Formats: sequence, C-alpha cells, structure tokens
Amino acid sequence: MTSELLDLRYGGAAPATTATGNEVIPLLLRHRSVRSFTEEGIDDETMTAIVAAAQSAATSSNMQAWSVVEVRDAARKDALSRLAGDQAFIREAPVFLVFVADWARHRAVASHRGEPADGVDYMESTLVGVIDAALAAQNATVAAESLGLGAVYVGAVRNAPEAISDLLELPRGAFPVMGMALGHPDPRDRAGIKPRLPQSVVRHRETYRASPDETIGAYDHAVREYYCGQGAARGWIETIVGRIRSGASLRGRDGMRASLERRGLPSR
Amino acid sequence: MTSELLDLRYGGAAPATTATGNEVIPLLLRHRSVRSFTEEGIDDETMTAIVAAAQSAATSSNMQAWSVVEVRDAARKDALSRLAGDQAFIREAPVFLVFVADWARHRAVASHRGEPADGVDYMESTLVGVIDAALAAQNATVAAESLGLGAVYVGAVRNAPEAISDLLELPRGAFPVMGMALGHPDPRDRAGIKPRLPQSVVRHRETYRASPDETIGAYDHAVREYYCGQGAARGWIETIVGRIRSGASLRGRDGMRASLERRGLPSR
Repeated sequence: MTSELLDLRYGGAAPATTATGNEVIPLLLRHRSVRSFTEEGIDDETMTAIVAAAQSAATSSNMQAWSVVEVRDAARKDALSRLAGDQAFIREAPVFLVFVADWARHRAVASHRGEPADGVDYMESTLVGVIDAALAAQNATVAAESLGLGAVYVGAVRNAPEAISDLLELPRGAFPVMGMALGHPDPRDRAGIKPRLPQSVVRHRETYRASPDETIGAYDHAVREYYCGQGAARGWIETIVGRIRSGASLRGRDGMRASLERRGLPSR
Repeated sequence: MTSELLDLRYGGAAPATTATGNEVIPLLLRHRSVRSFTEEGIDDETMTAIVAAAQSAATSSNMQAWSVVEVRDAARKDALSRLAGDQAFIREAPVFLVFVADWARHRAVASHRGEPADGVDYMESTLVGVIDAALAAQNATVAAESLGLGAVYVGAVRNAPEAISDLLELPRGAFPVMGMALGHPDPRDRAGIKPRLPQSVVRHRETYRASPDETIGAYDHAVREYYCGQGAARGWIETIVGRIRSGASLRGRDGMRASLERRGLPSR
C-alpha cells in the first residue's frame, strides 16, 4: 500500500523506505488537490477542529502572525472566485478559507500601549507572516484530509490581493497569502496523485548538489505521462519555463511588492 | 484525551468540538517544540519517508521551488549552530535540516534551453519559494512526530543567511528559509504544549473582526502562567512588543531584503 503510494508520488521512481509504518505518513503521501466537491456542507465543529490543528503548528517565537477568514456566504465566494482566476470550485466549495499574514493584531497591541511597531515594516516580518500562515494552512490541510475532506490551495488570491483585502475587510498589516477550498470530494473527480521530482533532486546531503539536466528530463517525461492520463500532455519544463519567463508571465503578480506596501507591509 | 489536548492548546479556553475522532488531529494538537534529544540517531530510510511526506505537500503550480539540505556532519552542525543563535541543540540533534526557497533549479533548466528567467526576480517568486518550503517543512514535522521523533524550527538560520548559504554551497537563487533540528526527544525535556491565542482571535467569519484588547490581555495571562510552570514568567504582550519595536529589535534580520538580493532573489 505505502510502496504503491510512493510509486505514484514519484512517477515510478520511488526511493526505498519502509519507515512509513503508521497511518499518518500514508495520509500525507496520498495528498491530491481536490477541485470538485459534493453539495454536502462542513459543520462548524469540524472547522473548529481544523482551525485548532492549524493553530497547533509551530509559529516563529509564538508570534502567531497569521489569521484565517472562513467564507461560506455564496455572494462572497462568488466575488472571491471572480477575483481569484474565475475558478468555479471556489463557488462550489462549502467553505473557502483565506490564510492571511497578519501583523495588524500586533500593531494594535503595541499602539494600545503607546509602543512603536516599526519592525513590522521589514522584509523579515513579511516572511514571518507568510511562513506562519503557510505552516498553519498545511496543518489545516492535513487535518481536513484526515477527516475525509478534500482541499486545494488557491495561490490566485494573490492575483488581486488588494481587492480581496477590501472584500474581507482586512486591516492594514494583514495580507492574503493563499486561499483554500474545502469540501467533500466529488467521487467522480479524476485528479490523482501528482508525481514529484525524484528525491535526489530536492534532498541534498551536507551541501547542495545540482542535479544533471537528464534527471530533470526524465521527470518531465513522468509529468507528461501523468497528464496524458488526465487528458492533457504538458511537461514540467514547459510549465516552469513559461511561468518564470518574465514579470508579465507572473499574471499580474509582478505588482506584489507594491501591493504589500500599500497594505501596510512595505517589506524593506 | 482530545479535550485535554484542546485545553492545553488554548490554556483552558478551548473551543468546543468533537470532530477529532481519528489519530491525526490529536497528533497535530499534541505538537510541541523539542530542543533536547537523546543520542539515538535517525536512519537514512526514516529520513527518506520524512522527505517523501514533505514532497507530497502542495506546491504552487507544481513548481516545487524548494530544497532541503540534510546535515549530519558534526563540524557542519557546529558551524550552523554558531551562525544560528549559538543554540546547543543544533549540535546535539542527529539531523539538522535546512529548508531552502529554491529557484536555482528552475533558472538552470531555463538557461539550458536558452530561455530567460526574469520572473524569478519578483517578490511573488520569493513568496512562492518561501511558501513551498514552509508547506514541505510542516509535512516533514508531522511525519517526524508521527514516528515518535521530536522537532523544532530554527528561524535563526535567517540571522546569517549568506554565511549559511556559503556553508551549504547554495547556488544563486537558493535561500535558507528555516532550519529544523530533528531527533529522539529526551524524556527529561520539560517543554509542554504551548497555549495559543483563543480561536476567536485568529478565526474570522466572512470578514475580519479585530478582537478586543481584553481578549489579548487574558491570553497574555495564560502565557505567563504557562511560562511560570516552565520557570520563567514572560507574557505574550511583552514578547511581541519587544520583538516588533524597531528594525534593530529584529536581531540583524533587518538586512533580509539586501541578503535576498545578494543571493539572487531581488524580490522586486
């Protein structure tokens, strides 16, 4: 079972390990992005457990520089969908979460005590907020999947971070980092376990060693085969080369630094 | 059992939920930072499973813009310890991982094909690398804890990102985001489950709502009580106010943006 999961995860190039003898590691290996949901809702207590798991993730010096906005209202999900790449599953998911890098709370605490908060203006603080939000979001994903729910991250909330901040009434110093659609997976959904780069490419021992281009070429082939099974045939190299070509290829996100600054995180 | 974990996690102010009826959510709730380890090592296959779990986390558009450097060599751990806040547990842990935001691989792939990679220079790409590294690191933490290992994140690798990049021979475009000490928890370690902010502070419904200062004050009290049990008595407000006061209070990390730029991630 676990060795099959590893084969799927590495597109047939699975590294050898037997150290997965519990329920948790197979759950993590089984992760797939779910973009179609049944009409079944998610009750409030379930979300409470998922958020408690998210809050249990580590956070830099216990700063807890993140928040999550839980959106269930149909009109608001519709507006978010239009702002975030017009993706229908945002509307269809019973719950859409927006994970926020949040220094507004700390600024308010300092201000209430007449203390300055100039440290928030630095890149380090932006990174801490983003990291805290990401660690929390990943625990939320794991908790949700352990309950049989499906999830997909939505980076496209960064297509329009200022409009989304307005829509969610985020204060200055709070910035949307990523969205997450949550729901019960539609059993007809065909998305499978996507193969990743060979472990040798990502895991470096003692010092960084770049992988030969042929290794990347073999992975490109594995990705192409995976997408063939899904009805498309795009390789990895084509995808990444297209994505990093220029500022314009970031689909509007080349304005991220200016958006952060306007939202109170100048990241200097 | 789970309700006790929730009580510890929220310092007595636990939200009501019964939706934790599996092994995974209690594992997540039980997280604590482990900073003292026995002399027992971690074998290679165990690390293979942990890295496979890390690679199974979501990644923006399957970009996989991260790497991990696995350090076991005593001299290198010693050097890392001195660069990262002189923390003894970095030396003592059998494995020290450095999670890296990594666009060097993508630049090499593009360059090999005569394609530009100017998109890497933008803030959006820095954030994607940091997010990808954080999502992977959190899955590594969960996998390690599920195997009975203990872990602690080390943000202090950002105290000296350039020296650490040299030590780990990171190429241009790869940047150390955070470290993680891993090992078998010393049973004498007293660190417990640290209370977090009440869920009402972090979880917003439909739109963001700032919490009243009294709620923060009550949490400050819970943190003080927790640290009293640990032999110290520092409140949350004192900690955060001290941390965000100024660029200088970031303990050298006010130079993060310049470091990113010098390491090939100008974040514009």
